[in-house]
Amino acid sequence: MFEITAENGRARCGVLRAGGHSIETPAFLPVATKAFIKTLTPNEAKETGVEAIIVNALHIYRKIFDAVVERGLHDFMKWDGIIFTDSGGFQSIKKFPARITDDGVLFSMPDGNQEIFTPEKSMEVQRAIESDFLFALDDCPSYPYTRRRAEEAVERTIRWAERCQGERNFAILQGGVYADLRKKCAREIAEMDFFGFAMGGLCIGEPKEEMHYMVEVTTPLLPEEKPRHLMGVGSPEDIMACVKKGIDIFDSAFPTRNARHGTIFTSHGKINLGKGNVRGDAIDEECNCYTCRNFSLDYLNYLFREKESLGMRLATIHNLAYMNDLMTKIREEIRG
Amino acid sequence: MFEITAENGRARCGVLRAGGHSIETPAFLPVATKAFIKTLTPNEAKETGVEAIIVNALHIYRKIFDAVVERGLHDFMKWDGIIFTDSGGFQSIKKFPARITDDGVLFSMPDGNQEIFTPEKSMEVQRAIESDFLFALDDCPSYPYTRRRAEEAVERTIRWAERCQGERNFAILQGGVYADLRKKCAREIAEMDFFGFAMGGLCIGEPKEEMHYMVEVTTPLLPEEKPRHLMGVGSPEDIMACVKKGIDIFDSAFPTRNARHGTIFTSHGKINLGKGNVRGDAIDEECNCYTCRNFSLDYLNYLFREKESLGMRLATIHNLAYMNDLMTKIREEIRG
Repeated sequence: MFEITAENGRARCGVLRAGGHSIETPAFLPVATKAFIKTLTPNEAKETGVEAIIVNALHIYRKIFDAVVERGLHDFMKWDGIIFTDSGGFQSIKKFPARITDDGVLFSMPDGNQEIFTPEKSMEVQRAIESDFLFALDDCPSYPYTRRRAEEAVERTIRWAERCQGERNFAILQGGVYADLRKKCAREIAEMDFFGFAMGGLCIGEPKEEMHYMVEVTTPLLPEEKPRHLMGVGSPEDIMACVKKGIDIFDSAFPTRNARHGTIFTSHGKINLGKGNVRGDAIDEECNCYTCRNFSLDYLNYLFREKESLGMRLATIHNLAYMNDLMTKIREEIRG
Repeated sequence: MFEITAENGRARCGVLRAGGHSIETPAFLPVATKAFIKTLTPNEAKETGVEAIIVNALHIYRKIFDAVVERGLHDFMKWDGIIFTDSGGFQSIKKFPARITDDGVLFSMPDGNQEIFTPEKSMEVQRAIESDFLFALDDCPSYPYTRRRAEEAVERTIRWAERCQGERNFAILQGGVYADLRKKCAREIAEMDFFGFAMGGLCIGEPKEEMHYMVEVTTPLLPEEKPRHLMGVGSPEDIMACVKKGIDIFDSAFPTRNARHGTIFTSHGKINLGKGNVRGDAIDEECNCYTCRNFSLDYLNYLFREKESLGMRLATIHNLAYMNDLMTKIREEIRG
C-alpha cells in the first residue's frame, strides 16, 4: 500500500495505494473538512490533479452521520479518490468547543446533547463512513501551551494510540515545541502497529523555526518504509523544506483558504485580488489550469471586487493546480 | 435576425440570430447583471441550455468599462453566445440611487463623481461593449407610482425612444398598470425603427393580474414580425401565461435567485433546501442536469445547511436546466 520509489538525502518519492486509487508522494491533500472542498465540485478538484483529500470525522458524525453511513463517504460526496479522515479533536476551534478528558473528546451535538469520542468510538466512526486512511484519536493542545500541558498531551496521545492501531491507520504524534517530548512520543508510538505516522499540533501558532526543528528531530525516529504525514502544513515554502526532512504527505487549508480570500500563488509571486490596481491578461503564464486557460486577470480581479463566489472558485482551482505543479516539481527534483 | 417558425393562437415560436449564434423562442434569459451569472462559469450555464443572457450596461460602465471595451463584453466574460444589454435605469434599487431627469439617468460613479446617461450615451456605451441586442433608455418608475408619474414616464420614454432607434435595438414600453398609458406608449413606439419591443416596469410589486392584463393589451399593438420581450418576468407560471399572450423572450433573476436562496423547482414541485427534514436520493427524477446526474438530495441539502457556495451553484444549475426544459416543452406545445 506504500512503496518508496526514490530517495534523495532524507527526501523520498513513493506511491500510496487504497481502494483502486493511488497517489504519488510527496503529496499535498486539500482539506474537505465537512465533506466538500469549499467552492469546488469533486471533478474540478480532480482536474487540478488532486487525488486524495482529508475529511474530519467528528464533523461528519455531528452533522450528517446517518446519510453518510448509508452511502459511504466516497459516494455521499462523490469523491472518486482516496479519503483520509481526521479523528477530530477540534479543541482549538473556538466556536466548536470540544473538551479533552482522559476518556476521550467531549463535544456537543447540534441538539445540545453531550457525546464523547473515545479512541474506539473515533475509529468506529471512521470505519463506518468507509475512510481509506484513519487517524488515531490524539490530544492536541491549543497554542500557546505550557510544557506541563504538552507532557500531559503526549502521555494521553500514547495511551490512546495503543487503542487505535490498525493496518490502514495513521498514528498522530504530539509533543508541542519540545524536542524531547516529540522524540519520546515518536519512539513509543513508532513501535506500534500503524500504517503510517502523522505529526500533529504544529503550524498552530508556534514560530516557524520551531515547527521545522520538531520535524527535523522526529522523522529519523520513524520507520523508513512507512509514510509520514505532516498535518496542517500547506505553504509552498514549508512543504519544500519539510520534504527535505523526510515528510511524504501534507494537508492544509492554506492554499484553498488563501484563494477564497483573494490571494493566489503564481510563478511570479503572490497576487492579491480584489484591488483596483490589479490589471492584465494572463493570470500566470506558466499555469495551464482551467482558470488560467479561460479567464483574464482583469476578469478574475473584477469577480473579487464584486465579491462573487465564482471568483473564489476560480482562485481555488488555480491555487490547487499550483500546488499540484509544485508537488510534481518536488518529486522530479527528488528523482534527479 | 428574427424569424417566426410556428404560431398557435397568440403564442409563437421563432428563431433569433446574432453574431453566429441563435436562440429558439419563446426563450428565457438568465441575468448576468454584472457580467457574470452568479455562481456559474459560462460553460456551466451553456450546459444547462442557456444561449443568451442579459447584462446591465450601467453596471459595466460604472465598474469595469475600460477593461470591457478593450476586449468586448463577450471575450471579457467569455460568453460564447448572445448578449442583451439593459440600458440600466436602476432607479428602483435602493443602494444604487440613480435619478431620472429630462436629460437622462443621473448616477454616481464609484469615486463619487456624478455622471449622466443620456439616451445617446446609453446606446454609445452598449455599442462600445459590443452588445448583440441593445435596449433603449427608458424611464421606469419604481412601484408604487401615481398615475401622474406613470404618464410622465410614458412621455419621457417615448421622447427618449426616438433617440435610441437602431437595427439591433429593443425599445422599452412603459405605462405602469394603466391600460390606456400602456396602449399609447406601445402605439407610438411601435411606429419607430426598432428590432424588437420590450415591456418594462412590470413585476416590480404590482398585483399579478394587473401585470398579465398589461401584457394582454399591449402585444396586439406590436408588429407581428418583431420579437417581444417581457422584462423581469421569470416564474414558470408567469412565463407560461405570457407566452400565450404573445411574448417571445423573458429575462429575470427569479430562477437563479431562488436557487441561491435554496428553493429549487422540480417536476414534483418546489423544494426548500437547508432544512433538516429534506431527505432522499434523487433531486428530480425527470431532470438530467449536471446536479441531478451527480449528487443526491441528501448531499445538496447538506451543502445548504452548511451554507456552502457549491450548494448554491448546484441549485442554480438545476433551476436553469429546469427553465430550459420548461421552454423546450412550451415550444413543443406551440408547434403542436
